[in-house]
This record gives sequence, C-alpha cells and structure tokens, in this order.
Amino acid sequence: MNEIEQYQKTINEFIAQNKFSKFPHELYEPLDYIMALGGKRMRPVMVMMACDLLNGKMEDAVPAAMAIETFHNFTLIHDDIMDNAPVRRGKITVHEKWNVNTAILSGDVMLIEAYALLMRYENDLLRQILTIFNKSAIEVCEGQQIDMNFENRIDVTLDEYIHMITLKTAVVLGASLEVGALIAGVSPKQAHHLYEFGRNMGIAFQLRDDYLDLYADPEKFGKQVGGDVISNKKTFMLIKALELAKDNDAITLNKWLQAPTFNASEKVEAIKNIFDQLSIPQLLNDAVASYANLAWKEFEQIEAAEDKKKIMSDFMKGLLAREV
Amino acid sequence: MNEIEQYQKTINEFIAQNKFSKFPHELYEPLDYIMALGGKRMRPVMVMMACDLLNGKMEDAVPAAMAIETFHNFTLIHDDIMDNAPVRRGKITVHEKWNVNTAILSGDVMLIEAYALLMRYENDLLRQILTIFNKSAIEVCEGQQIDMNFENRIDVTLDEYIHMITLKTAVVLGASLEVGALIAGVSPKQAHHLYEFGRNMGIAFQLRDDYLDLYADPEKFGKQVGGDVISNKKTFMLIKALELAKDNDAITLNKWLQAPTFNASEKVEAIKNIFDQLSIPQLLNDAVASYANLAWKEFEQIEAAEDKKKIMSDFMKGLLAREV
Repeated sequence: MNEIEQYQKTINEFIAQNKFSKFPHELYEPLDYIMALGGKRMRPVMVMMACDLLNGKMEDAVPAAMAIETFHNFTLIHDDIMDNAPVRRGKITVHEKWNVNTAILSGDVMLIEAYALLMRYENDLLRQILTIFNKSAIEVCEGQQIDMNFENRIDVTLDEYIHMITLKTAVVLGASLEVGALIAGVSPKQAHHLYEFGRNMGIAFQLRDDYLDLYADPEKFGKQVGGDVISNKKTFMLIKALELAKDNDAITLNKWLQAPTFNASEKVEAIKNIFDQLSIPQLLNDAVASYANLAWKEFEQIEAAEDKKKIMSDFMKGLLAREV
Repeated sequence: MNEIEQYQKTINEFIAQNKFSKFPHELYEPLDYIMALGGKRMRPVMVMMACDLLNGKMEDAVPAAMAIETFHNFTLIHDDIMDNAPVRRGKITVHEKWNVNTAILSGDVMLIEAYALLMRYENDLLRQILTIFNKSAIEVCEGQQIDMNFENRIDVTLDEYIHMITLKTAVVLGASLEVGALIAGVSPKQAHHLYEFGRNMGIAFQLRDDYLDLYADPEKFGKQVGGDVISNKKTFMLIKALELAKDNDAITLNKWLQAPTFNASEKVEAIKNIFDQLSIPQLLNDAVASYANLAWKEFEQIEAAEDKKKIMSDFMKGLLAREV
C-alpha cells in the first residue's frame, strides 16, 4: 500500500467509525449515505499529506481532514439540489432518495458538524484553521453563485471563468494543504506556500476536468461524454471557441448553442470538430501547464525532505495526467 | 428610551452599518433583505441583556448578538423554503422574491458568516462560545426535522412535542443568554443558570405562541387566526385535545382533522369549541406557568444587582403576558 492509499484507508476508516447516526434518523441518514459514497477523498488526503510532508503527526490531521470532507459533501448535497442532479457517484442523489426539504436540512446540519469536528484542535490552532475554513467556505458559495449566474450569460470572459473555478473548486484544495501544514506546526508563511500550491493546482485540475468531459475515452469515462457541450456550459473551451471562431465556424457554433432541440451526439460531434479546428485542446493544455507551473514555483519554496516532497509531487502529477 | 429599546437600537444600527453586500450581489442581497425585515430582535437583545446584567461591556456582546441574529435569519430563509411560506414579517420570502436555489445558497453563506462574526472573540472565549453555538445550531436542525416528521404522524405525545419545541426554539434563547453571560466573564456555572433560565422561558413562550395562534385578538394579531388548526399542526392544544376528547367530541375532532376539504372559519370555530369544552386554554396556561416557574427558579440562582435583574425579569414577564 503506498502513502496515498494509506491516507485513503485512514479517512475511510474514520468515516466508518464515526457515523453521524443520531436521532432523528431522517436528518442524519443522508450524511452517512453521502459520506459512504466514497470517491478519491482528494481533500482529506491533501490535509494528511501536507501534515506528513512537514513532519506533523498524521493522526493529528484526521479530524481536520474529516471536517473538510464533511464540508465538501455538504456542498455536494446542496449543489445537487440546485443542479437538479439525479445521480452522484453512480448512486441516486440525496434530494431524490429522500426529498428536497431533507436534503436542505441534512446539508445544513452537515456544515455545522464540520465546524464541530474542528473543535478538537487547541485554541491557537483552532483560530488559524477556522480563519482559513470560513474564508474558503464563503468563497465556495460565491463560486457556486457565479457559476449559476453564468447560465444566463453569453458574454462570460476567460478571466471570469478562471475566477469562478478558483472560488468554487481551487480554494478548498489550497485550504486543505494549508490546514494540514498548520497542524504540522509550520510558520504561516510556509503554510501559505502550500495554499498557493494547492490553489493553482486546483485551477489546473478543473481545466483538465473540462477537457476530459469532451476528450476522455468514452469506454473509461463512466459518464456521458460531452455533458458540458450538450448543456452549453461556459467552460474554458467554449469561452475560448466563442472568442476565436470566425465566419462559418462562428455561425455553426452559435446555431448549435441556440438550437432549442437537437440530437445530442450530433451536437457533441459538431462542436468537437470546431474545437479541434481552433486548436482548443492545445490551448487548454497550455493553460493547464501554465497554472501547474505557477503551482510548482510555490512548491519549490516549501522546505521539506525530498523523499516526502516526491510523494506529494507524484500525487499531483498523477492528477494532472489523468485520462478519466 | 428604556434598556430594551436601547439594545434593539444598537443591534439595528450594527446591522445597518455592517451590510453583507459583496460580490456576487445575487448571493448577498437576500442576507441584507431578510436582516432588514426587523422583528423584535429577541435573541440579540438577550445576548446584550445578559452581558449587561453581569457587568460586562455591552459593546463586547454586539458581534455575538449579530452572529446569533444572523444564524436565526439563516434558519428563517431555509425554513420558509421547507414550509413553502410566501410571506415573512409581512414581506415576500427570499425563495419567492428570488428563487429556491438562491435561497438555499444565500442561507448557506449566512450560516458561515455567523461563524465568521464570532472570530472577533479571543481564543478562550471563542471556544466557549463555539461550543454552545455548535450544539444549539445542531439542535435547531434536529428540532426542525422532528417538526417535519410530526406532519405525517397522528400519535405525537406531549413529551415529544415539548422536546421538539425545546430543540427548535428554546435552546437558542438559552444559548443567547449563556453567550452574553460568558462574554461578561462569569463562571460556566453562572452562565449555565442563564442558559436554563432562557431554555425554560423559551418553552413557555412557544406554548404561549400556540395559544395566541387561536386565541389572540384577530384585530391585533396581524395574521390569520387559527392557522395551526387549519393545517392540523400538532401543537400542545391539539395533542392535549386528542388525549382528552371522548365520545362526540372525539368524533367531531377527528372528522375535522380528516376532512379533505372544509370551510376554514367553520373548522376553526368547531375545533375552538372543543378546546374550550376540554379546558385546553386553562391546561395550556398551566403549562406556561409551570415552565416559567422552572425558569424563575434558575433566575434566583443568578448573582447580579437587583435593579439589573429587574430589567431582565420585566422583559421576560412582558413576553409571557403578550396578547399578540
């Protein structure tokens, strides 16, 4: 078992041994349900990995790792209501399995439970962690609102898009690393390098996600290829294509964006062709590399043993290079 | 201006001077909207009053008062979605004015902003306040879920009802007084007397609310008299009536409860007659007196100047005796 698998095992065991099951069951069952759906546990892994990297005790990081995973799952419950999503990680979503009211309220109590988990840290550390946690949690809500606003706009710029994914996705990855670093007891300056490393990597990961939505191997992807294209989601690729498309490409692109009814595979194929002609995949990969590069510059500033740094850099490289 | 009006003025000024207005506006406008709807500001008044009672500096209590009022308004936004309520304090509710998604997300960020306000306290006090805040916030969610569960049950007992209103309403009143006391710097034991005083008063207030829903002067009440009766809400009065009604009363009561369609005023009149025959108002007032009595016993344990205690006891007596 490598280090990452060890972190995943630790958090999964903690989740299994610390069920929220309390009275009334209707309130708490959705918490245990969504926490048990699994996933890569990227955020808690990052908390533990950062703590380990900086010679903290890994077990000290577990409550914070659990708090951030609990917070993340709260956002999933509420986001799935807002997106009217029927499925999450191959299973029925909380508001579909129970109902919207329970999904709202179970999400609420889940957010409070995340705060309650942080109370295990001593006073000075508690304040440091809460300061980061509050800021990032507020930013996640802002990012979600900005994302919803984009649905009604056709003039979203690339800068606005990067700002949105930074808030909605990247800051929590930065916060996960920073919190792990603070638990290890390093200086706020060192911890901030971890934050910036995670934040920039988070932007790169999200851009890679946008790419895989259309270009992943359909056999391995596990969900509908081109979902973002079908729903006209303003991602890096669509925004860039709208910026670059001229003449016939522009006409075809807008025709598909405005079509009230269409054959989904035809739309995906047609827009993919335009993206290819405009070299959008290349431009996206350049952007991924550029944010990863910013991240690696922060990484150089982190003072830690080379063997431990290699665990973290291998993990991040793996996420950057993933095919699904 | 008496002391209570002074506290209300202080919190209203703080709200007006500390608007949440940030970007994106769609997220934050609902926060300022609901905070500006006003109300008696009972919870922040209780935070400040408890601090003042125990010789704390009133201005030290303001951020916590604001945090608890912010938390309370978060619960109002989400409860109004769950109850499908169109109107709150005479104005259109957040999910009706904007939409359900915005109401969910603005409520979420409002809960986080409540935590952020508490960060103004120094470390030891922050931990004490957060411990109470987390516990009470979790209990409020539990109370709301239990209340929703009651809608599908006909066998709710009086004990279950008292437990539900304790969680949903009373604990935050207890927490408001306890937090104010801790800010004043008294011992946890003294602060706990304040908590128990507020919690028992909170139960008495809620029972009084149940009574006023049916027995308030319609001219002064400002909302539909008998709303609880029309919706078959399991309050103290209905639960007690179902327990005591025999023969014809029981038949009539169940007929109205099961009627799929009915004339609202006829139903209210008929059920009110049964309540009167069973002396339910008297039994309810006895219960109010009994919880108030438990509260006053705690109040006797509080060590404070008599003139300041009189301000608090007059305030509570006023709430107990209110006619609307």
